[in-house]
Amino acid sequence: MKSKDQKTPIYNFGAGPACLPQAVLAKIKADIPEWYEGMSVMEISHRLPVFMELTQTIEKNIRQLLAVPDDFSVLFMQGGARTQFAAIPLNLLAQNPKANYLITGMWSQLARREAEKFGDIHVVATNEDSNADSIPDRASWDILEEAAYFHYADNETIHGIEFHDLPDVPNALLISDMTSNILTKPLDFSRLGLIYASAQKNLGIAGITLVIVRNSLLEQAPFPYTPSTLDYRLFAQSQSLYNTPPVFCWYVLGLMLEWMLQQGGMAHFSDLSQQKSSRLYQCIDNSNLYTSRVPTNNRSRINVPFQFTNPDLMPTFLEAAAQNGLVQLKGHKAVGGLRASLYNAMPLAGVDALIEFMLDFEKKHH
Amino acid sequence: MKSKDQKTPIYNFGAGPACLPQAVLAKIKADIPEWYEGMSVMEISHRLPVFMELTQTIEKNIRQLLAVPDDFSVLFMQGGARTQFAAIPLNLLAQNPKANYLITGMWSQLARREAEKFGDIHVVATNEDSNADSIPDRASWDILEEAAYFHYADNETIHGIEFHDLPDVPNALLISDMTSNILTKPLDFSRLGLIYASAQKNLGIAGITLVIVRNSLLEQAPFPYTPSTLDYRLFAQSQSLYNTPPVFCWYVLGLMLEWMLQQGGMAHFSDLSQQKSSRLYQCIDNSNLYTSRVPTNNRSRINVPFQFTNPDLMPTFLEAAAQNGLVQLKGHKAVGGLRASLYNAMPLAGVDALIEFMLDFEKKHH
Repeated sequence: MKSKDQKTPIYNFGAGPACLPQAVLAKIKADIPEWYEGMSVMEISHRLPVFMELTQTIEKNIRQLLAVPDDFSVLFMQGGARTQFAAIPLNLLAQNPKANYLITGMWSQLARREAEKFGDIHVVATNEDSNADSIPDRASWDILEEAAYFHYADNETIHGIEFHDLPDVPNALLISDMTSNILTKPLDFSRLGLIYASAQKNLGIAGITLVIVRNSLLEQAPFPYTPSTLDYRLFAQSQSLYNTPPVFCWYVLGLMLEWMLQQGGMAHFSDLSQQKSSRLYQCIDNSNLYTSRVPTNNRSRINVPFQFTNPDLMPTFLEAAAQNGLVQLKGHKAVGGLRASLYNAMPLAGVDALIEFMLDFEKKHH
Repeated sequence: MKSKDQKTPIYNFGAGPACLPQAVLAKIKADIPEWYEGMSVMEISHRLPVFMELTQTIEKNIRQLLAVPDDFSVLFMQGGARTQFAAIPLNLLAQNPKANYLITGMWSQLARREAEKFGDIHVVATNEDSNADSIPDRASWDILEEAAYFHYADNETIHGIEFHDLPDVPNALLISDMTSNILTKPLDFSRLGLIYASAQKNLGIAGITLVIVRNSLLEQAPFPYTPSTLDYRLFAQSQSLYNTPPVFCWYVLGLMLEWMLQQGGMAHFSDLSQQKSSRLYQCIDNSNLYTSRVPTNNRSRINVPFQFTNPDLMPTFLEAAAQNGLVQLKGHKAVGGLRASLYNAMPLAGVDALIEFMLDFEKKHH
C-alpha cells in the first residue's frame, strides 16, 4: 500500500464515509490548532458570531450551488439519513397519514419500513423481486392519489440505480433521498417538497445531514411524540442552532461547498459526474471480464457496481488494485462484486487510473 | 488577542464546544491527511476492521476509566443530550409511563418538558422559584414510588450546581445527565440505571453522545413510534454501528480517552477537578468584587459561574481577560455574570492564570 506522500496517489472509491478533496484536507490541517482567536474550530461555541457567520455562508453557498428558491428552508440536523426516515413521516403525516413509497433498492426499502411506524404507507412499486437491478417500469406504478407525499431514493448507493430525471408523477409532492447524489446535478425545485442527504458522500464528513424543505410543509404540526431534535419547525426557527450542532462537521461542509464553487459549481460537477461514469461504464461494457447488471437508462453516475464473469478473480483484483492505490472497491455484501463510488471529491484522474488498471488486469487474466 | 504560537497561551473557558488538550490537537493534525492506508480517519468506512477495532478500544477504555460493570452496555449515538431527553422516555416508559424528574436548573427542566411528550412526568422538586441557585432540600422531595425511573442532572452547566454524591433515593433507578461532568469522578453504578453525556465538554467534540445503560433496561420494548436511530436495543445489538456513525467524532473521543488514561485516569482527574475548582472558589470567596450565588455544598467543580458586585466592570474584565489569553468567560444569558468551565482539558495552569488575572483586576478596580 502506497501512502499519499509517495508517487502513486491513493484513490478511495469507498461508498461512504468517502474521500475528501486534497485541498480540503490541507485546509483542515492548516486550521489546527488555530482557526479563530487561538482556538480550533472544534473548540468554539456555536453561539460565537464567527460560527454563526459560517453557518450563514454555508446556507448561502448551498442556495447558490443548487439554486434553492426562497420558499424553501435549508436545515442542518444530526443522525444521518436514517434519522430522516423517521423525521419525514413524524413531521409530515400527522394530518394525513397516507404516503406513497417507491421501492428501488435497499435504501428506499429501509425508508419505507421506518415510515410504517408512523403512517399508512402505500408501496407504489417495488423491484425487490428482480434483484433490485432496475427502476420498476413506470406503467406498473400504483399511485395513491390522496397521499401526503411521494417518497423515493434518487440514487440507490448499493445497487447503483439512479433517476436520470425526476420521477414522472406530476401531481405528487416529491420527497427525495439524495444522500449519494446531492450536488452532482441541478435540481428542479418546482416539483420537490423535500430533499435530504447525510454529509459523508458529497457534503464532507459523517455527522451532519442536509434537509431542504418547502416552507409550506412547515405550517403543519408534527405528531405530538416527535422528538424536538427531529422537529423541522424548531430547526427552521433557530437557523439549525436548536441544540449544540456538530461544529466541526459543519465547518468541513463549508470547506466542501467553497471548493465546489471554486471548481465551477453545479455545471462543472454535473459534467464531471457524466464524464467519470460514462468512461467507467464504457470500460465495463467493452470488457469480457466485467459486467453491469443495471440497464443503461437506470445506471447511476455516482455509484457503479460491477461483477466479474469469473468471480474467482475478485480477491486477486482487489489486492492488486490496492497495491496500485485504488482502494475501497469491494461491493456491498447485498450485491457482491465491486463498486466504484464517484463522488465529487473523486477526480477524473482517479477514474482513469481505475480504468487503466482494469484494462491491464483483464489483459493479464483473459 | 494572542495566538497559540505566541508566548501567552490561550485558555478557553467556554462551556462547550470546549477546549481540547494540546496533545490531542497535535495528534489530530499529525493524522491528516493519512491515518490508515493513505486515507484520513474522516474518509474511512465504519465497516473497515481498523475502525471497528478503534470502537472496541474506545469501549474498553471507557469501561476501564469508569469501572463500568459487565451488566451495562456502552452505546454511542448522535443528536446530543437533547436527543436523549426524548430517547430515554421513548425507550423506558412504554410499559410504565410514570417517571420522577428532579428540577435543579435549565437542563433538567428541558429534559422534563421533552419527557412530558411521552409519559406521565412527576416533578419531585424544583428550584425554579429560587433562581435555580441550589438543589432543593432533600426533605422537600416528593417521590412517586411506582415510577419507572428517577431523572436528574448531575451537573447543571448553566447554573453551576452539582451533586457531590448521588441523590439520596435508595430504591429508585437513577438516570443521570452527566454531559458536563462525565469522567471527572468515579461513579457507583450499583445505583445507576443509565447515564448519558454529549461529547463536546469532556469527551471530545460535538456530534457523538455516550449512553451507558443497564442491560436489564434493554429487555423492555420501546414505544412503537420510537425512531430506530433512538432505539437503545438496535444500538446495543450493532455495537453502535446501526447506521453510519460520525467517524471523526468517534476518533477524537478515542484520543481523549487515551490522553486521560495517560494522565492518570479517574483518580487524577477527580483530584484535578477538586483542585481547580477549590482554588477558583477560594479566590471568589476572598474577593469583594466577585461573588458566587451557589451554596458551598451544591457548587459545581466543573462549571463555575460568578457575578460582579459592580456589574459595570464586566465588559472591561472580559476585554482585558481576552487580551491575556483568557477567553470564553461570558456567562450564560439566563444567569448573567461570568462562567469558567473547568473540563478535563483545562490544565491547572489555566485556572491559576485566571485567578492571577482576577486578583490583579480586582486590585486595579477596587
